[in-house]
Amino acid sequence: MVPTVEWKDGAVRLLDQSRLPSQVEFLDCRDYRAVAQAIRELKVRGAPAIGVTAAMGVALGAQNVTVDEYPAFVKQVDAICDHLAASRPTAVNLFWAIARMKHRLASLNNQPIAEIKRELIRESQAILDEDIALCKAMGQHGASVIHSGQTILTHCNAGALATAGYGTALGVIRAAWEQGKQIRVIADETRPVLQGARLTAWELMQDQIPLTLITDNMAGSLMRQGKIQVCVVGADRIAANGDVANKIGTYSVAVLARAHGIPFYVAAPYSTIDLATKTGADIPIEERSPLEVTSIHGSHPVAPAGVTVYNPAFDVTPAELITGIITERGIFQPGELADAFGTQQVADKSGVIA
Amino acid sequence: MVPTVEWKDGAVRLLDQSRLPSQVEFLDCRDYRAVAQAIRELKVRGAPAIGVTAAMGVALGAQNVTVDEYPAFVKQVDAICDHLAASRPTAVNLFWAIARMKHRLASLNNQPIAEIKRELIRESQAILDEDIALCKAMGQHGASVIHSGQTILTHCNAGALATAGYGTALGVIRAAWEQGKQIRVIADETRPVLQGARLTAWELMQDQIPLTLITDNMAGSLMRQGKIQVCVVGADRIAANGDVANKIGTYSVAVLARAHGIPFYVAAPYSTIDLATKTGADIPIEERSPLEVTSIHGSHPVAPAGVTVYNPAFDVTPAELITGIITERGIFQPGELADAFGTQQVADKSGVIA
Repeated sequence: MVPTVEWKDGAVRLLDQSRLPSQVEFLDCRDYRAVAQAIRELKVRGAPAIGVTAAMGVALGAQNVTVDEYPAFVKQVDAICDHLAASRPTAVNLFWAIARMKHRLASLNNQPIAEIKRELIRESQAILDEDIALCKAMGQHGASVIHSGQTILTHCNAGALATAGYGTALGVIRAAWEQGKQIRVIADETRPVLQGARLTAWELMQDQIPLTLITDNMAGSLMRQGKIQVCVVGADRIAANGDVANKIGTYSVAVLARAHGIPFYVAAPYSTIDLATKTGADIPIEERSPLEVTSIHGSHPVAPAGVTVYNPAFDVTPAELITGIITERGIFQPGELADAFGTQQVADKSGVIA
Repeated sequence: MVPTVEWKDGAVRLLDQSRLPSQVEFLDCRDYRAVAQAIRELKVRGAPAIGVTAAMGVALGAQNVTVDEYPAFVKQVDAICDHLAASRPTAVNLFWAIARMKHRLASLNNQPIAEIKRELIRESQAILDEDIALCKAMGQHGASVIHSGQTILTHCNAGALATAGYGTALGVIRAAWEQGKQIRVIADETRPVLQGARLTAWELMQDQIPLTLITDNMAGSLMRQGKIQVCVVGADRIAANGDVANKIGTYSVAVLARAHGIPFYVAAPYSTIDLATKTGADIPIEERSPLEVTSIHGSHPVAPAGVTVYNPAFDVTPAELITGIITERGIFQPGELADAFGTQQVADKSGVIA
């Protein structure tokens, strides 16, 4: 698998996901503003990948700060953090990663600026390495609910491309496949940006995991025909009560799964769990350009000019529709998250969370 | 509104719906094979419109038959009917209209061939005129369940474009609007062929009926937010028990509506009710080319080459999820159809139904 994001020759190198699957191209960001723009334009997407990228964006921005005094340095890095934090509103990993970088910066207050700069690169690399390890641990836990002979529905792309590698929902599927289970994936194409068609299909085909691509509106009919045994999706933010914000359409899948008695799992690392947000109603939902709906790839129109469009990028699935949340520490009931992750969250989020 | 289909200067003139909304172009079919191809390629679509078009295709084909003897004439028209009947499998209006044309032909066995040819054109025009009248009657009945201040979700295009004019589901909406009710429509874009984005949006904008376009996977989230008060869709075939085959995704809308306590109506004329088909399980579901899913407009790829695709054009919504079926004779419970339409069906379908 090609890396989603990496620190390369003093730049943040991103696989440009907006061009997949027709082109495999990389984008070298040499300025933190370019990193923020890449996040905003979905060149990198997926909550964990956004977090890793933002952390590297902070490190990158810090390299170019020219002041020598710690307070002035911190002030400029804070401004960089604010700029990156404004790129997208829903995925909490973005704010978590930025807070962690700030926390690291605060702990280096007696170090020379040159050393602080090196240390910020190391911290962002640590976040990246940890993300892959978290995904692999999630995969091991999650594979226990996937059985040979099953067909798994997934929505959007919660794969290697949505993380630093391996994936959350697709990490679970990948782990089951690596254990030799005979499985098949049904991938929702995931309008409007088609992450399922463009990214999940591409990623699973690279690993030769059997898949069938469908349009989002086919999932219910397939469930009724008994062709789907389990659903696994990722998450952009999980509230303290276990409500899950994820790619638009996730809620419909959860309602349909419940109506057909099909288990519905969410796979996400601790950095996606936001105990500071009480319920899903408190999660800000990003609305994106109508152009995503009225055209394909921003250029091929599919609707009349001037039509009114509603384009929320995410929806909220209430905790009661979720069979289990697959994390790096095991599978939890939505209501168990606050107890299970409370201490860890406090330790990691001592910085400011937006 | 421009006519969907009409008999014009000895040809069947179709509004080429595959080019909407970017181009308003007409296709003059001068041969019944061109009519069948236009139906197959979705240049004309929507169950009632397919029925009217097929009837005109039979009339057109009959004009070009050169034999003078009635039995030989019937044999050739039968072959034309078979060709047209093979164009699409799910919408029963196609078979109903062809059977009605055959029935008319059988009744003309003592007429000169020239007169029979004229009479077949008249019969196809009668089917067209009747279709518009049926839609307007449906609209009047259906408008009673639409109240001022409501937002109505519709799926696919069951509008003037899906009929000879006025529409079934959109006819209900149109009638409510004409009665001065303050309503708003939410149109599912309806992947893969985007009839909602391309056709419903275009049609409603022409009539200045307020609408918001969404992707199919947003409907559930909007229902949860209380933004949809009623659903109205069309039908391609209604079985004797009230199960409804309609555009893929209709079933998901019905399940979501039920989960949110939102009434779900189907609007269709008697020609869509197929009492010869016992339940939805007996309705043949057309599977179409993977290209409809993997590319937009057949040319802009949105998925990796070679990906496996499942592309059923329709799904079946079971009777128990349907609040009411709006017909030209009033609103019925799904289970009431067999009694209400039994006599009419026998009278009209004395010909052969595939």
